[in-house]
Amino acid sequence: MPIYNAPAKDLQFVLHNLLKVSEQDIEGYADLEADFTGAVIEEAGKIATNVLAPLNAVGDKEGCVLENGVVRTPKGFQEAFDQMRDGGWTALDCDPAYGGQGLPYVMNTAAQEPFVSSNMAFNMYQGLTHGAYSAINVHGSDELKEKFLPKMVTCEWTGTMNLTEPHCGTDLGLMRTKAVPQENGTYKISGQKIFISAGDHDMADNIIHLVLAKIPGGPDGIKGVSLFIVPKFIVNEDGSLGDRNGVSVGKIEEKMGIHGNSTCVMDYDDAEGYLLGTEHKGMRAMFVMMNEARLGVGLQGYAQAEAAYQNAVAYANDRLQGRAVTGVENPDGPADPLIVHPDIRRNLMEQKSFIEGARALTLWGANLIDRAHRNKDADADGLVSLLTPVIKGFQTDKGFEYAVAAQQVFGGHGYIEETGVSQFARDARIAMIYEGANGVQALDLVGRKLAQDGGKHVMAFFEMIKTFIKENEGNEALKADFLDPLKAASKDLQAAGMYFMQNGMTNPNNALSGSYDFMHMMGHVCLGLMWAKMGKAAMEALEAGADDKAFYETKIATGRYYMARQLPTTAMHLARINTGADTVMALDADQF
Amino acid sequence: MPIYNAPAKDLQFVLHNLLKVSEQDIEGYADLEADFTGAVIEEAGKIATNVLAPLNAVGDKEGCVLENGVVRTPKGFQEAFDQMRDGGWTALDCDPAYGGQGLPYVMNTAAQEPFVSSNMAFNMYQGLTHGAYSAINVHGSDELKEKFLPKMVTCEWTGTMNLTEPHCGTDLGLMRTKAVPQENGTYKISGQKIFISAGDHDMADNIIHLVLAKIPGGPDGIKGVSLFIVPKFIVNEDGSLGDRNGVSVGKIEEKMGIHGNSTCVMDYDDAEGYLLGTEHKGMRAMFVMMNEARLGVGLQGYAQAEAAYQNAVAYANDRLQGRAVTGVENPDGPADPLIVHPDIRRNLMEQKSFIEGARALTLWGANLIDRAHRNKDADADGLVSLLTPVIKGFQTDKGFEYAVAAQQVFGGHGYIEETGVSQFARDARIAMIYEGANGVQALDLVGRKLAQDGGKHVMAFFEMIKTFIKENEGNEALKADFLDPLKAASKDLQAAGMYFMQNGMTNPNNALSGSYDFMHMMGHVCLGLMWAKMGKAAMEALEAGADDKAFYETKIATGRYYMARQLPTTAMHLARINTGADTVMALDADQF
Repeated sequence: MPIYNAPAKDLQFVLHNLLKVSEQDIEGYADLEADFTGAVIEEAGKIATNVLAPLNAVGDKEGCVLENGVVRTPKGFQEAFDQMRDGGWTALDCDPAYGGQGLPYVMNTAAQEPFVSSNMAFNMYQGLTHGAYSAINVHGSDELKEKFLPKMVTCEWTGTMNLTEPHCGTDLGLMRTKAVPQENGTYKISGQKIFISAGDHDMADNIIHLVLAKIPGGPDGIKGVSLFIVPKFIVNEDGSLGDRNGVSVGKIEEKMGIHGNSTCVMDYDDAEGYLLGTEHKGMRAMFVMMNEARLGVGLQGYAQAEAAYQNAVAYANDRLQGRAVTGVENPDGPADPLIVHPDIRRNLMEQKSFIEGARALTLWGANLIDRAHRNKDADADGLVSLLTPVIKGFQTDKGFEYAVAAQQVFGGHGYIEETGVSQFARDARIAMIYEGANGVQALDLVGRKLAQDGGKHVMAFFEMIKTFIKENEGNEALKADFLDPLKAASKDLQAAGMYFMQNGMTNPNNALSGSYDFMHMMGHVCLGLMWAKMGKAAMEALEAGADDKAFYETKIATGRYYMARQLPTTAMHLARINTGADTVMALDADQF
Repeated sequence: MPIYNAPAKDLQFVLHNLLKVSEQDIEGYADLEADFTGAVIEEAGKIATNVLAPLNAVGDKEGCVLENGVVRTPKGFQEAFDQMRDGGWTALDCDPAYGGQGLPYVMNTAAQEPFVSSNMAFNMYQGLTHGAYSAINVHGSDELKEKFLPKMVTCEWTGTMNLTEPHCGTDLGLMRTKAVPQENGTYKISGQKIFISAGDHDMADNIIHLVLAKIPGGPDGIKGVSLFIVPKFIVNEDGSLGDRNGVSVGKIEEKMGIHGNSTCVMDYDDAEGYLLGTEHKGMRAMFVMMNEARLGVGLQGYAQAEAAYQNAVAYANDRLQGRAVTGVENPDGPADPLIVHPDIRRNLMEQKSFIEGARALTLWGANLIDRAHRNKDADADGLVSLLTPVIKGFQTDKGFEYAVAAQQVFGGHGYIEETGVSQFARDARIAMIYEGANGVQALDLVGRKLAQDGGKHVMAFFEMIKTFIKENEGNEALKADFLDPLKAASKDLQAAGMYFMQNGMTNPNNALSGSYDFMHMMGHVCLGLMWAKMGKAAMEALEAGADDKAFYETKIATGRYYMARQLPTTAMHLARINTGADTVMALDADQF
């Protein structure tokens, strides 16, 4: 069975050495002392290791089953879900007014990582609920909030997001689901939604569906879409559950992975729904949660890679095969462990240096979301909006790539399901697709975010890098290994942005043909910035005489790997971008 | 259900415009006129489309089942296998002395592609048989050949290759399976072999296992390994089947993909075996077939990408979503087809330009194998030995990558099993692992092949590129788009080789830390060479007034894409290689 242990020390390093959260002037951050965050992470890690990880393969093997209109989750899920509820893990950053603990989002994000690594499919039940909770919390009337939120905070009731229909995913303006206004102020919802994660299951008394639908007579396309609350069971005035609403499961999809999560076709047939927010402003209501939701998916990317990496390291240390080219290292054994071989190391260093960089970027993103929300800081909001498609798109592409790379360490044993590493790759695959396929993230980044507020946020991002380099270039230890590569990569990224400006006006295809490369390039620059800062933080810890020297030395060595071997990728992306649209758009559709 | 149509025109282009096979001075090549090869490919394509493709999802869903010691293949496999046998498709390039048709290997390779694309798991039953046939044909006594080959050529009996054991895959010197000599000249084989593809099934009367084992008292390690024939049923003197031999199936593995092929644990218990070749020279006997076997796996890589690509193109033309940024292209529909979007095009061009380049490289490799075998040409043998790890390693990595990219075009519909594209990715994944994991291919390339015969073959490879560029640099149309990028990429590759020479002597880890990058870099240079030659061939066809102008123009445009957007990757690989072993080997094993 695969192993999993929460990277508690590394999460703490990011929170305290890199972000110095308890020193930040954000409401609630003063409480985030190292002892406190360490205790939370340790407890989350225990549940991940002892409760969730053992159920990961069970969920993959059993999957969810639809029987007589009821979805059965895999054996053990119900008990584990009870434990999550009872421990208050579903409520960490929820509003205390509805029973939440009111902790900052950055704390919740750090605590989530072990849950996602150990059992991504399981964790989606609470993840989706959290998304629905946020939508209602931001857009709901007091009445709706009081009716639904307390039970959602505890996950006694879970939530879903219903966007996709058979004929439309990205292009939601084509939506056909209808919401007909009733005299009593409710709506009758009818239509079919597909790919609804956690759409139905047996672990909660009620399921609160958030459903996008069109009110007849409203504007065409995306501007006529509204958001509704549609509970599985009608909630009576006294809070008790009433009749079954007009919503049912059409089928459960068979998928490449995340078998433990029920992906449902949901059929709405005159279901009673309640308008959330304003008529026809449903997309705006959805967008409010999008940074959080996409950051959560970006976390899934590196968290699956982390789980796969831990197992690859264990296997590489355990499996004896061949001899080190520089001389026998395990003379008493029949062969040396795999980890002596340079190409195995290269593979593991790729994984490790990505994962730790992505962890830093994700928690920084969560930190910016806190600053935006709690301090009403528009600059932080703009910056995290810029970073969001990168966190989602880059990290899920790479997360899958490295889960596959971890599988490769196992050789043939990685292809059979018995060892469990194939599951990490199959589960990670979905993160590249949902919450906006990664091509759409790239389009969002280049088509919208770069130019947002007159390009203010991307300029601020470059300025931040420049300032950091300037402030630290006297630091010899940092300069050659960290600052110089960061400077070069950042220059490449700026040159790509310049290319888009100069060539995208006359033909937008020149920019959009390079959007995917730009997203990856920016991902590398972001991780380069994280590594430069982490390198500095680790050096400072060593200078301050930190106890665990090996940890900080490892951190610096891992950062050096990233800067030397991953950052050069930016030059390749720039070269590709600079070729523009000509070769990309050369063929007619029928020439493919 | 996924579609599949054999790329007959492109296979013909490679055989005739690029390789000009019928003009080559190799025995049997004069018969390879365009009409003949076209007819063979057309027939193979029909079987692929009509018989094998419809069984691909069936095999994935049903898998193979072990019941009472007997393996049942999926519904329809038996009838399809009969059709392959009856049509003579298992015997194309086999020795006429044993019932084969004696065609060149290049013809067999071209005919195999549609079979592999349409149903990789199914095609492995005959693929493994062909490998076993070749081993017996090269190393067997006349008696053994007469006894086993005629039935193997027709696939009435199928074959397997038994190398891996639970504790050893790459490092076969650790092998424990024993072969005890008997007085009658046979051996008693005992031990356990794992990951045996097509290890048992119900589609053949007998299964001929080729088994690596150690004769007690022989040299230690890999030098004491011998190769044996171990039939499932003993073959009597008169050719009839006798007693069941001491070999049985321990279990069938559950895998990420290729469910239609039975991957077995095989238990040998005093099974009667016959020495193939010389005692203790088993590895040498295996190596003879290795170029062919690895080229076959390299073909699997791009052939799965081809199948996935065809479906992605169909979906991109069919699915209406969003509007072209440069103006509506489908005014009568609710949205434009996906294929109008630049990032979808980028994705499809990546796939297309890789697949066509890989097809050319693979058939050139097959051509070189023919030249080596039929003309006893040592230079051709050396060159194809150099190219083999690239064809296997690069093409299977990229084949999987692009099957995943094709899946991405489908969005959420690519993640559910119903559409069938997930299977292409899951099936393609194994090709990166078996026949020597790709890290081992990289090691073979950098650790052995570069220096083979004093570096003669890699020098010849570079010389070939240089000569081609020199001979054609007067061709303006070719120079900027094809020759200049090829020259730059080839220079990068040579610089990497130079780095290895200068830094690998003092510390071999400096070379081996860059082996994987080198393999990919060389893959790009190989495909760059193929594209430069194909660009030239397509231009010549246009100048000669070829009928199908659109085909050749598409070919040139696709080549331009590869040269502009894929070849720049070599600079990145060089930059990584030039950082040597320092960052790769910096950590102690317990620091991971």
